[in-house]
Amino acid sequence: MDTAQLFIGLMSGTSQDGIDAALCRVRRDGDTGADHIELVDYSCTSYEPDLAYLLRAVVAEENTGLDDISYLHTHLALAFASCTAEICSRNNLKAADIAAVGSHGHTVRHAPTPRSLDGRSLGATLQLGCPSTLAQHSGLRVVADFRAADVARGGQGAPLVPIFDHAFLRDQDVDVCALNIGGIANCTILPGGCAPGDVRAFDTGPGNVLIDLAARRFFGKRYDSGGAYAAAGILAPHLLAALQREPFIAAPPPKSTGRELFNDGYLNKLLETSWQGSRAAEDLLHTLTYFTAWSIAENIRQFADPRARLIVSGGGLHNSCLMQMLSGELPEAEIVDSSACGIPSDAKEAMCFAYLAWRTLHGLPGNIPSVTGADKAVVLGGVY
Amino acid sequence: MDTAQLFIGLMSGTSQDGIDAALCRVRRDGDTGADHIELVDYSCTSYEPDLAYLLRAVVAEENTGLDDISYLHTHLALAFASCTAEICSRNNLKAADIAAVGSHGHTVRHAPTPRSLDGRSLGATLQLGCPSTLAQHSGLRVVADFRAADVARGGQGAPLVPIFDHAFLRDQDVDVCALNIGGIANCTILPGGCAPGDVRAFDTGPGNVLIDLAARRFFGKRYDSGGAYAAAGILAPHLLAALQREPFIAAPPPKSTGRELFNDGYLNKLLETSWQGSRAAEDLLHTLTYFTAWSIAENIRQFADPRARLIVSGGGLHNSCLMQMLSGELPEAEIVDSSACGIPSDAKEAMCFAYLAWRTLHGLPGNIPSVTGADKAVVLGGVY
Repeated sequence: MDTAQLFIGLMSGTSQDGIDAALCRVRRDGDTGADHIELVDYSCTSYEPDLAYLLRAVVAEENTGLDDISYLHTHLALAFASCTAEICSRNNLKAADIAAVGSHGHTVRHAPTPRSLDGRSLGATLQLGCPSTLAQHSGLRVVADFRAADVARGGQGAPLVPIFDHAFLRDQDVDVCALNIGGIANCTILPGGCAPGDVRAFDTGPGNVLIDLAARRFFGKRYDSGGAYAAAGILAPHLLAALQREPFIAAPPPKSTGRELFNDGYLNKLLETSWQGSRAAEDLLHTLTYFTAWSIAENIRQFADPRARLIVSGGGLHNSCLMQMLSGELPEAEIVDSSACGIPSDAKEAMCFAYLAWRTLHGLPGNIPSVTGADKAVVLGGVY
Repeated sequence: MDTAQLFIGLMSGTSQDGIDAALCRVRRDGDTGADHIELVDYSCTSYEPDLAYLLRAVVAEENTGLDDISYLHTHLALAFASCTAEICSRNNLKAADIAAVGSHGHTVRHAPTPRSLDGRSLGATLQLGCPSTLAQHSGLRVVADFRAADVARGGQGAPLVPIFDHAFLRDQDVDVCALNIGGIANCTILPGGCAPGDVRAFDTGPGNVLIDLAARRFFGKRYDSGGAYAAAGILAPHLLAALQREPFIAAPPPKSTGRELFNDGYLNKLLETSWQGSRAAEDLLHTLTYFTAWSIAENIRQFADPRARLIVSGGGLHNSCLMQMLSGELPEAEIVDSSACGIPSDAKEAMCFAYLAWRTLHGLPGNIPSVTGADKAVVLGGVY
């Protein structure tokens, strides 16, 4: 463990647009016991058209059956193998140089809520991207299927990033909050010098989701680039008050949410009840952005430490307006871009699965029961 | 490898009626290099009603979706874990006594024919029964997902039993034919003293399938018990001649068939064209049974050795009429019940997956390319 080994982490995100691959050097310092990870290279590869089409169809269950699911399983793995081949080739690495690939696969169903059959209750999670196929076509050892063991132990099978945050972002003295602003915003709370068992993680509420929905509807854009629309507007207090009544924000952790709550219907209802159509759409963007910043800050004030070091990753990092508002809400916090800590935001999830593969090969557990709700910490995944 | 280790093989057959579990002692003799397997205990456990219902629905794709597939994946594993717990308990074994479980899982789709996406072609196979869940709930190391690596190497992912036949049924001097008479009959040809690369395996044609279909239609029975109906009839030459024109029988190996050829429609067409309705149904059974025996024998005469040792397993073994006819067709063959070789017929497949788990843990390949069509022999499955 003292010698650095190369791992490739692979992540196929739920946005279904492509595969993130992170080539990482991982080692544990024999003296301090601290783990180290270094990102050597990173790639993001879009799905080719046939595979993208099949993936979307299977996930949406559009007249797809077991045949489609099975072929998706193997063809995703072929696409993963192309990514590992490319990242090896451009770094002049042979298969023998790579200790293993940590492959998350593509989640087609995550259902940790137990279903009861014949008096036995258990949740379920299903990732596609056949590990045997990946191993055969990449020539690399593969560690895969990371979520199922945690679900089998009664956990939510998520989030798995906190053990990575604990290993690489915690501080001996300062409280750290690793904040990821994706569609939904989530944070890992790392008290100064904490052990894995002290780590907590939860969703704070919307990340970019409401902003993106409004940007699409009123400006025909996928997102509010740099927060420019929001910056051009002013606050709509009536709408903000309605948003701030959302019970999820003040609910105590553990808690998680998703697009089943914060979606088009949610925005529609808000606009109907609390919005004057005569106002500029920029004001809507401003208010939604402010609410997003406030909801993150409110969670940190209530459930963590408002003077914590806030290490931020995710697309929200690129929204300057959002980041300024967040800073305004948490004036005592030290706000840091994750990249400055050696963890570039885009590569973070893929790096996490490289690290989890390293942990599995060294017989170390990968889940944190205080975070997932599992009844114990276990070694995750299978080795192919 | 020289020390015997205990393995449990688990098989959930395509008949969807339950789980076979075989507790085996496996070792390799350091001096001779020969592998040895001993069946310690065997159990066959029916599925409980909820799981049986869900399994049938998912396999038949009756309004089932990703949710059902995912829960089936975990709940099958819970049922597998019950089987390992029971077989351990009744043999006073602790988890630490078992080296590993070899779990085949339940095949919900086997589609080795390549499908092309974005210019890449590959087949697919999907077994359910989540290995992580089985490992967590049994407390045992699990080896699973045996077929995918062979499919990834361009093979059919089947049959996998021939490496087991080669290890435990071959003879140094005598040609052996390991014949399994299930719904379809298949054989593994093991020339005297052969290496794995000399092994061939193929389907010979119908096993019990036509006999069972006729027994159900004319006598309302699931099968012709002991071959009693067949024994009470006489040969219908016109029907036999029609059956013997089936091109599959004379086609040279490699070849495989299934219920997509030999099914109700096949029987209907035969009855329409080649059967006088005035004849006794016993004559039909007699003729179908004779055709089955003849088709097996014809394959052995044409493509193997009519004086081989025929080691028989499968349900057909219990049909005395069929076995007598087979013996009559191959008068020089030595016909042996698989049980007499230490491989009880019912336990054979589950024993095979115990042995394949042993091979995987020792880094030994599990497929035979000359049999599956894969481009090389590879270590099968993943270790959880």
